[in-house]
Amino acid sequence: MKIQQVDIKLYHVPLKQPLQDAIHGVQRDFSLIVVSLTTDDGATGMGYTYTVGQTGGSSVAALLEDNLAPLVIGEDPRRTEHLWNKMWWATHYIGRGGIASFAISAIDIALWDLRARLAREPLWRYLGGYDSKAEAYGGGIDFHLSIDELLRQTEGFLDEGLRAVKIKVGRESIAEECQRVAAVRSLIGDDKKLMVDVNMKWSVEQALRASRAFADYNVYWIEEPTTPDDIEGNRRIETEGPTPVASGENLHTIYEFKSLIADGAVSFPDVDISNVGGITAMVKVAHIAEAFNRPVTTHGIQDLHVSCLAAIPNASLLEIHAFRIDDFLVYPLQIVDGYAYASDRIGHGVVIDWEKIESHLVSRRSVSNGIRYEQTPFADSLA
Amino acid sequence: MKIQQVDIKLYHVPLKQPLQDAIHGVQRDFSLIVVSLTTDDGATGMGYTYTVGQTGGSSVAALLEDNLAPLVIGEDPRRTEHLWNKMWWATHYIGRGGIASFAISAIDIALWDLRARLAREPLWRYLGGYDSKAEAYGGGIDFHLSIDELLRQTEGFLDEGLRAVKIKVGRESIAEECQRVAAVRSLIGDDKKLMVDVNMKWSVEQALRASRAFADYNVYWIEEPTTPDDIEGNRRIETEGPTPVASGENLHTIYEFKSLIADGAVSFPDVDISNVGGITAMVKVAHIAEAFNRPVTTHGIQDLHVSCLAAIPNASLLEIHAFRIDDFLVYPLQIVDGYAYASDRIGHGVVIDWEKIESHLVSRRSVSNGIRYEQTPFADSLA
Ligand SMILES: [Mg+2]
Ligand SMILES: [Mg+2]
Repeated sequence: MKIQQVDIKLYHVPLKQPLQDAIHGVQRDFSLIVVSLTTDDGATGMGYTYTVGQTGGSSVAALLEDNLAPLVIGEDPRRTEHLWNKMWWATHYIGRGGIASFAISAIDIALWDLRARLAREPLWRYLGGYDSKAEAYGGGIDFHLSIDELLRQTEGFLDEGLRAVKIKVGRESIAEECQRVAAVRSLIGDDKKLMVDVNMKWSVEQALRASRAFADYNVYWIEEPTTPDDIEGNRRIETEGPTPVASGENLHTIYEFKSLIADGAVSFPDVDISNVGGITAMVKVAHIAEAFNRPVTTHGIQDLHVSCLAAIPNASLLEIHAFRIDDFLVYPLQIVDGYAYASDRIGHGVVIDWEKIESHLVSRRSVSNGIRYEQTPFADSLA
Repeated sequence: MKIQQVDIKLYHVPLKQPLQDAIHGVQRDFSLIVVSLTTDDGATGMGYTYTVGQTGGSSVAALLEDNLAPLVIGEDPRRTEHLWNKMWWATHYIGRGGIASFAISAIDIALWDLRARLAREPLWRYLGGYDSKAEAYGGGIDFHLSIDELLRQTEGFLDEGLRAVKIKVGRESIAEECQRVAAVRSLIGDDKKLMVDVNMKWSVEQALRASRAFADYNVYWIEEPTTPDDIEGNRRIETEGPTPVASGENLHTIYEFKSLIADGAVSFPDVDISNVGGITAMVKVAHIAEAFNRPVTTHGIQDLHVSCLAAIPNASLLEIHAFRIDDFLVYPLQIVDGYAYASDRIGHGVVIDWEKIESHLVSRRSVSNGIRYEQTPFADSLA
């Protein structure tokens, strides 16, 4: 069995309303890069990655088209360790994370989808099948909202069946942030989990002051309290403050997670299969975390992550991220009473409605046995 | 003064003969991505980056064209710290190294060229002007050569005026590597510097055994003895073995260099302005190294690096790398009696002969006030 064709599509997906956090400014859309693999005997797998806004989307697509697709064509898709290492070393000089990790991720996810489909297993069970569900939370990108709007957003999360929520923080005034946290805590009651996300905005001493202030509101974690490049700073926030640290959405290799975890700088490693190197790398991060007695949480693409968290014994919360593709899915994620349920279809079970998403297509390319077919948007669908 | 236009050109530059190291396999060409900046009052600056083979070239170009060029247009080119941070944070989610660092580097180098040209200063003096020259060495990519060929290569380096050489190692048999090292040492005599480069191939224990074996031949450094992601492993090789460690060509942020240096894992931090984030980042790495009493060496693009090493007090050797663009330069680098001399023309003084390199052009794009002009290869020259 050999991979015969790789199809790469780049979309710019608009958000329903502009979103904002403490670092990334106003976000109006995100880039979605979808990879479809087809083998010589007709087996298929699909994976995707995404970037914030339009930054890096075309760069990820170019790396996939010009460098990674030719590497995997002709290879056995079941040898995920072989292919992952082949991609890692081929891109090592321009890699060790960054855009290369996003591109590797998209292919690796498609490989695991293909493998699970071949085995006629749903991904969550193919990966180990610890549970069939994951506790979920609503992750607001809500830095710009008034307290009233924040409360309406929270009510929306509860209406969706969620029982835990996260809000963005990162202002200069910690008193102001406490008012926002207090308002949400008061709305949801004492028994539900409430998290905050700084998106790296604070210094270590600001984050420590905030960690202490947030303890009055029983904040479950403080996410990315400062830059992830300062491991010692994160360790201080984690160990000297009362609020546990979550971090990882900006770490793109297993080595970066190893450092953060082994140096005692994080309670909740926060992994994203679309930027850490796919499912192959995510499973390794989960195992490292397990050995250090840490539960892992996930960042974004809940539709895929639900199957990964459901598979492992040390799962923490599944983020229901505001970059959603529900409108373009044949089977949107099911959330009931605080839990998201992994798909029971074979593979990851995420099926894109290509017609519905077609209007957001920016570019597509087919690579087949070394021959690349450039295609203009709105040509006949490949899928 | 505002940046008005950014021109990006991607070249695939063939090597005169195929080269080989222990990790990257046979190399037949490299990708060269050249950025030219023009301000509203006609000031110009030029920078470039490169990748191994054709991997990542189009991806770097896409990020420059679609995301970084629009960010710097309309900005004051003299505010390098502002622009560096703007580019770093705009690409942070897909960045923190990797391809984003290569793209940022190309623009940052062009900004420093422009600044020095505005000041009518040669770059080496504009950056501090410690010395006007740097001790140079010939860096062979010669893993595939027989011992006879290795000796002929070494004679070639000496004929060029070089007085120090480096050879590739990384075989399973350390005895075989010692034969190669011994042959080169015997040819050059006892007084010249001789380095070896493992390109990350060995485990920590292999590297330690080699470090001890190489001590008989007075090896000046062992470069990238194991993966740079294993800082503790590098620290062991550095401190437990007699041969000092050089490392850094695969580190793409100042934070990665800080860890390697502060954790005592390197004697010779090996920096490359085309992948660490340009001259802005390289100067910071040099200053960190200085505070830790470490001299810095450089990887590749000797034509630019000579001016950077000449500027700082803690300069070690300048690598004369085998990916050369001498044939396409109006003023090739001068090497006399072991030293390379920084250009005394304003800016970095590297002037590309656009006609000579034209046949290797793969793509070009002009971005001007948000409008992008796609141009097919072999259209009228932009420069
Ligand atoms: Mg977050
Ligand atoms: Mg090297």
